[in-house]
Amino acid sequence: MGEFELIERFFQRKTAPALARQTPPAADPIALGIGDDCALLRPAPDMELAVSSDMLVEGRHFFADVDPAALGHKALAVNLSDLAAMGAEPLAYTLALALPPERARDENWLAAFARGLHALADASGCPLVGGDTTAGPLNICITVLGQAPAGQALRRCGARAGDDIWVSGDLGQARLALAALRGEQALAPADLAAIRPRLERPTPRLALGRALRGIASSCIDLSDGLAGDLGHLLAASGVGACIDMALAAPLIAWARPLAAAGSLLGSDPLDPRGALALALAGGDDYELAFTAPAAARQAVAAASQGSATRVTRIGQITAARGLKLRDARGRETDNPFTSFDHFR
Amino acid sequence: MGEFELIERFFQRKTAPALARQTPPAADPIALGIGDDCALLRPAPDMELAVSSDMLVEGRHFFADVDPAALGHKALAVNLSDLAAMGAEPLAYTLALALPPERARDENWLAAFARGLHALADASGCPLVGGDTTAGPLNICITVLGQAPAGQALRRCGARAGDDIWVSGDLGQARLALAALRGEQALAPADLAAIRPRLERPTPRLALGRALRGIASSCIDLSDGLAGDLGHLLAASGVGACIDMALAAPLIAWARPLAAAGSLLGSDPLDPRGALALALAGGDDYELAFTAPAAARQAVAAASQGSATRVTRIGQITAARGLKLRDARGRETDNPFTSFDHFR
Repeated sequence: MGEFELIERFFQRKTAPALARQTPPAADPIALGIGDDCALLRPAPDMELAVSSDMLVEGRHFFADVDPAALGHKALAVNLSDLAAMGAEPLAYTLALALPPERARDENWLAAFARGLHALADASGCPLVGGDTTAGPLNICITVLGQAPAGQALRRCGARAGDDIWVSGDLGQARLALAALRGEQALAPADLAAIRPRLERPTPRLALGRALRGIASSCIDLSDGLAGDLGHLLAASGVGACIDMALAAPLIAWARPLAAAGSLLGSDPLDPRGALALALAGGDDYELAFTAPAAARQAVAAASQGSATRVTRIGQITAARGLKLRDARGRETDNPFTSFDHFR
Repeated sequence: MGEFELIERFFQRKTAPALARQTPPAADPIALGIGDDCALLRPAPDMELAVSSDMLVEGRHFFADVDPAALGHKALAVNLSDLAAMGAEPLAYTLALALPPERARDENWLAAFARGLHALADASGCPLVGGDTTAGPLNICITVLGQAPAGQALRRCGARAGDDIWVSGDLGQARLALAALRGEQALAPADLAAIRPRLERPTPRLALGRALRGIASSCIDLSDGLAGDLGHLLAASGVGACIDMALAAPLIAWARPLAAAGSLLGSDPLDPRGALALALAGGDDYELAFTAPAAARQAVAAASQGSATRVTRIGQITAARGLKLRDARGRETDNPFTSFDHFR
């Protein structure tokens, strides 16, 4: 199978997929898809275009034996999560794929990978419009394009002292699943099965991101762990934060039965193998962390309900720089956790 | 050096670069650059957005010991060449970069790579707005964004029987330099030095592509060799072509002294190691092949002059499918050359 046959067989759709677009556009925003030197898009007028690229490397971001459909899903999901963090609506994506010879010959693997990609693309209203395939160590680079009304995209830089800090969903399960798959953490098969989708099939919070336009003062997606990613938001906004561990408890409530069963160190909240550490420094959550003025709590609740996405208020932005943790007795300590860095 | 320090030190510009934009925009089209979950762009109204991604893999697209500044140049150039083929004006690009640990530590390499990238980006009015860095086998994936007036982008599908076929610049030198560097072809050091920039520092034909809007009936950039790439254009247009080897001779005139010196097999034009084979099946040229009605010859000449880019008329589009070569005596043969395929 040659390069162009591979693209045609697995990635070029025979019939136009039924795309779930949030706001059905007046005109198809894809003027030209796969098959020319470039794709051509027509963003709606008065929209800003959001662009993000993420690269996934075998052995680094995923195991060689990962379910290829899950890999296809995740490769697109981590990019869509960046659009979600900006409150942007997906438009289209490109896929650049380096395949070792044995993968390029493995039709089952390719078909499953493409199926995982296309399913999330269709559900997100985000068709594949172009890209590149080449031989090489397995590497998946997706660039996603989205749009948001001009001036309304959510940024990292708008957090102000006194703002509430919010996080969507749960935190830490993806990192725990990774530890179990690596053999660093013993976990009952049923417990691993329950959390493994959080590692392999993250849900980009697109509807929540859109609903937070005009409400959130800043937003970021959580890929490297809450402590590090919130740190980027704080740095961009020139502020600090205090996370209230009592408020944040619902984010790691999933860990209680595991801790009770002795599968997770849960007694000391600062234990580096405990649930709080997984939440603060684990990574791969692809939830949104965002800030909003305290006066916007009802609006945040409405955005949460409207997007069917649970959110938890976990603390407050402070004028003083740095990230602090406040325990149930009101004692504050400097955050001891750091997040993932590819070159450390 | 961590991931974020690496981005800040080598890829995030301290001061806004002076961008050579063809048409200075009324407002800066970059609403938000590096440093958030997405970049935000504001394409001009009534423009279509052109998008293309290319992935370069060490050992496949470049030698491990290539000059890193040339590598930075080429990684962006091959993407800009896709914009050129659409007649699109560059807007911005993202860079996803997988680096092995020894490269991530090599500040000289990183600085030179970034210098090569930034120099071409500035000269092309195409700033870096985002991307990703990760550890992994060396892989460079660039996604370039450009714009063209709605409906005016050049496509592959518009060639009609009777149209002239044109090619910019020279062909085959990049492939010969590759053969010499691989030791497959003996070449005097001075001869190699003269053609090596064609392999390592290709020139995207942006000005020519723009000038051909409204003139060319179809266009494609030449990355895998004229025969294969023209074949894509013919397939997209539902036509065939005949290349007149006498007309095409100027494309390979550079080879005459080499053939005379015995460095290149030049006597039989169909010799697979001759200049014609390098031109038809060599690849890595990053010139434009385009078609235009015979009535547009003066307009093509004006576009060539206006963009200071030599073009050569090499044959004609035919209603009959397939690619034929016509020799100096008028005899037609089926093209015997095939182009590069990453999985064959």
